[in-house]
Amino acid sequence: YNNKIKIDFSVNTNPLGMPVEVKKALADHITDFELYPDSECRDVRKNLSKYEGISRYMKPANILCGAGASDLIYRLCYVLQPKRVLLCAPTFSEYEKAVEMYGGKIVYHELQEEEDFRLTPRILNDINSEVDMLFLCNPNNPTGAMIDARLLLEITMACSMNNVFLVLDECFLPLTNRESSLKHFSIDVRSAVLKAFTKTYAMAGLRFGYLIAANDGIISECEKAGPCWNVSVPAQIAALAAMKCTNYIENARSIIETERPFLQDALREIGFKVFKSDANFILFKTKEDLQLQKNLAKRGILIRNCYNFKGLNDLYYRVSVKTHEENLKLIKALQNG
Amino acid sequence: YNNKIKIDFSVNTNPLGMPVEVKKALADHITDFELYPDSECRDVRKNLSKYEGISRYMKPANILCGAGASDLIYRLCYVLQPKRVLLCAPTFSEYEKAVEMYGGKIVYHELQEEEDFRLTPRILNDINSEVDMLFLCNPNNPTGAMIDARLLLEITMACSMNNVFLVLDECFLPLTNRESSLKHFSIDVRSAVLKAFTKTYAMAGLRFGYLIAANDGIISECEKAGPCWNVSVPAQIAALAAMKCTNYIENARSIIETERPFLQDALREIGFKVFKSDANFILFKTKEDLQLQKNLAKRGILIRNCYNFKGLNDLYYRVSVKTHEENLKLIKALQNG
Repeated sequence: YNNKIKIDFSVNTNPLGMPVEVKKALADHITDFELYPDSECRDVRKNLSKYEGISRYMKPANILCGAGASDLIYRLCYVLQPKRVLLCAPTFSEYEKAVEMYGGKIVYHELQEEEDFRLTPRILNDINSEVDMLFLCNPNNPTGAMIDARLLLEITMACSMNNVFLVLDECFLPLTNRESSLKHFSIDVRSAVLKAFTKTYAMAGLRFGYLIAANDGIISECEKAGPCWNVSVPAQIAALAAMKCTNYIENARSIIETERPFLQDALREIGFKVFKSDANFILFKTKEDLQLQKNLAKRGILIRNCYNFKGLNDLYYRVSVKTHEENLKLIKALQNG
Repeated sequence: YNNKIKIDFSVNTNPLGMPVEVKKALADHITDFELYPDSECRDVRKNLSKYEGISRYMKPANILCGAGASDLIYRLCYVLQPKRVLLCAPTFSEYEKAVEMYGGKIVYHELQEEEDFRLTPRILNDINSEVDMLFLCNPNNPTGAMIDARLLLEITMACSMNNVFLVLDECFLPLTNRESSLKHFSIDVRSAVLKAFTKTYAMAGLRFGYLIAANDGIISECEKAGPCWNVSVPAQIAALAAMKCTNYIENARSIIETERPFLQDALREIGFKVFKSDANFILFKTKEDLQLQKNLAKRGILIRNCYNFKGLNDLYYRVSVKTHEENLKLIKALQNG
């Protein structure tokens, strides 16, 4: 299966691939895969609070590790049991699945194509006391749009006033050149920030994410809400090794900031409608149904058709920003139909 | 942490450790840990139905892979939402946690010390139409007791007549010299069999288990009930490699069948009460509180105190059966108090 795929633009992971230090740590510790994982991820949690620069505000008890961000989204929905949840459309589909699994109903805030699917102050009208929870993906998947910092502050206040639990998903943030909003969330007990190493360190196969919340009661409830050995030994080893990698994220960001406009321009030249992005991936739209995913797959290039994102259809595609050489191959393949 | 531990008798994994073929497969595929796992575990499921010898009865659609058996226990409890669940005491504690997470109540069937905590026909009195679900661990954890084959058949019939969903947990069965009951469960749509590679192939850190059920509707409901990329890439790679290992389980069984009676006799000679076991672990009881777990840990030997198993207390301990050399070290340490 993998042999046939030359380049995968369908997953939004770091263009540099998994750091060599992480691969080495895994290779050196394969015998440890025999042991049960530390169910409390003590080493990892301790290191995360330093890594995130929040050790003055947050304790390890404010951090919960999970098998990817998804694991934590489900646990949070179980613990909070929200009846009405506000979600943007389009956005990451696991929020909807997790909310509905525990009987919650979704209210959609539809992002507008004319505004590059960016969040605007209109969302404030949808934040009211009938809503229990709001998930915001920042930057958003699949659009790559960051929320304006001032608007995010207004949203936070509106949520606080209306008793809406706000989950800020920053899984893609480390690969942008924007600041995390984690510090602003260090006081608010009705919010949580989701992070993951899946994309940041290109370790999607290992499943490692974490949830940070000022309310440590929610963290301990989430910890109990499911199997206790959820974070595998390889995930914990990789997470510890990844936190020690220096320059790796900076190098990736520098590639992304150069390559994203290059790829966007090239996609526009081919004739596609390309949306603004602040992230390591790009959303674009074709004028007619070109079956690009199918056609490129024949040549070993995977891209993501967005038909299954609410608010989009099969004319939309998402591609990740990769190295210059790889991006050139994508462009060439697209130029040839 | 690990450096201080010389021998770990507290986990019930295969005394041979992880097969070299599995370690090699993992080392050879570390770069694949970058990729998202196949959320449907297609290769693994296909191979499992052959591996279990049920390919004539069961399709891959009758098998669901999970991040260890625990993951599947929680999914099953979510899907079935049992109100009243019959559990043996003592038994594996995750059943209780999962049932209670989804609002179910537990009814305990107390196993008797005088009967080596073995299941007897008395359990049939507790199977009635007020019970929705029954978990049976075979052999049971922490006692190592197998259920008599004829009694198991009677239990199956009683469950069927009373509409009780029966989950047979065979996680430890491959390391006994008994037959799996999987074939008898290939017709019954109100039952499921749980298995895992955790103990069989000493890969507790990788989290890999699977659920087999004649009712493929339950399998697909369980699949939807939680995060979709739950089985990591290393877990899938290790599972595929493990299924190809020949003689490994036979070799382990032969060690266990020789070493279990040796270890039991030695424990009896020291003065402990040793219970019958058919498995790769032994339950024993001390006359007074000897703080064995704490005392042995100082010498780098881990054993499991059973104070937190319902129906037992801190006089009971569980040790796994390991290689002769390791077992000798345990005995020596116990003889020295």
